[in-house]
Amino acid sequence: MQKKDKISAGFLIIGDEILSGRTNDQNLNFLAKNLTELGIILCEVRVVRDVENEIIDALLALQNKFDYVFTSGGIGPTHDDITSQAIANAFQEDLILNDDAQKILYQHYGKNNVNEAKLKMAYLPRSASLLDNPISSAPGFRIKNVFVMAGIPKIFQAMFEACKKELQFGKKIFTKEITITLTESIIASDFSNLQKEYPEVILGSYPFDNGTSLVFRSTNQILLEEAMQKMIAILKKINFDSITKIS
Amino acid sequence: MQKKDKISAGFLIIGDEILSGRTNDQNLNFLAKNLTELGIILCEVRVVRDVENEIIDALLALQNKFDYVFTSGGIGPTHDDITSQAIANAFQEDLILNDDAQKILYQHYGKNNVNEAKLKMAYLPRSASLLDNPISSAPGFRIKNVFVMAGIPKIFQAMFEACKKELQFGKKIFTKEITITLTESIIASDFSNLQKEYPEVILGSYPFDNGTSLVFRSTNQILLEEAMQKMIAILKKINFDSITKIS
Repeated sequence: MQKKDKISAGFLIIGDEILSGRTNDQNLNFLAKNLTELGIILCEVRVVRDVENEIIDALLALQNKFDYVFTSGGIGPTHDDITSQAIANAFQEDLILNDDAQKILYQHYGKNNVNEAKLKMAYLPRSASLLDNPISSAPGFRIKNVFVMAGIPKIFQAMFEACKKELQFGKKIFTKEITITLTESIIASDFSNLQKEYPEVILGSYPFDNGTSLVFRSTNQILLEEAMQKMIAILKKINFDSITKIS
Repeated sequence: MQKKDKISAGFLIIGDEILSGRTNDQNLNFLAKNLTELGIILCEVRVVRDVENEIIDALLALQNKFDYVFTSGGIGPTHDDITSQAIANAFQEDLILNDDAQKILYQHYGKNNVNEAKLKMAYLPRSASLLDNPISSAPGFRIKNVFVMAGIPKIFQAMFEACKKELQFGKKIFTKEITITLTESIIASDFSNLQKEYPEVILGSYPFDNGTSLVFRSTNQILLEEAMQKMIAILKKINFDSITKIS
């Protein structure tokens, strides 16, 4: 398959528990790292409450803007799990009992142990295709360019493996980082000029307690290396011992 | 001051480093917990890249919807710090050298150590008022209902102390939690009926490896307590030993 230069993604996190502070989301960082690995650019994230019209508005906004949308949360058996219904409504589809999903639940739990609430997890939008859940069986699903996954990190991560098989990867994004003992403002002017010289490399500066990390990101490894070597030369001129790490 | 029942907030996280996975955001959970403490309901979060029109669009969307908006990231001295300019443009204001901010930088670093890049941090929208930064001096700022803060967690947290003085608090949101050994689907039907009976209490169910946490949230402590006691009675009927913790 021919690789597009830029494949974009949005991420919709659904759940009151994130917004109340009860739960500390762990899926954003996992997804961000993994999409970057695949050359897919995560462009925007939204976190919304368990409120249907808020889910629908955010979903459609992201779905119109980006090649892929991932969602987390709200596909369990309780009344506050409204993601599948909201997504069906967003795409004006019925929510129907998905035979394959039902089969999976029956196999995993035994038919007699699947009560009405558990079976709710097999009700999916009509055109949904399943995303395997090797942890607790109840599947995630794909509809159009949207991948709907569980909020529990272990399950989210397992479902992402299933997504991967369906994603078109982008050009690999190379990253290099120079860690220095200098504060940002000392290198700001040189770093800004370097950014102008290398528009195809994204230069970011991130301060921490005892210094600064200079990050170089690009799909073009040669330009990235060039920009980085120029910055190293500049840093050595400012203070020969200012570089503590290159990675 | 009379307390409004519901005071709402949005949070805008600005920065490529969050979306690439390089940095694991820690500000959302801090802000969520602290706003909940103050009776302010965090309704939506967005994460956008260091791209001016994306910052502006997200900022105005949140600013129109909610009583308060908080932002993190992009107010440092380097070229990738474009938040102040973007916010000035969003509100059609000039970005001007703020005398008080300049004074603070001069006092903290010494005038001779404040180069052009460092001084950039004192350029703020014309109507901005300052938010104190006891950690590294360069202030955050408030403009209209928007509080603009640094991305570094320690500084974000310190600036939030300055915000607090300007916020109208909402009615306290009480939270109770019952931890049980049962899986969600077993209690789903009863829990859903209880939600219908107590619309003023928000009931959430959050599974984990060996059980489920049932969370009750409300500004009405009496109804919250009532709903919780009913659920405890139901749980004891299902399995007398199913409750492992009430907090």
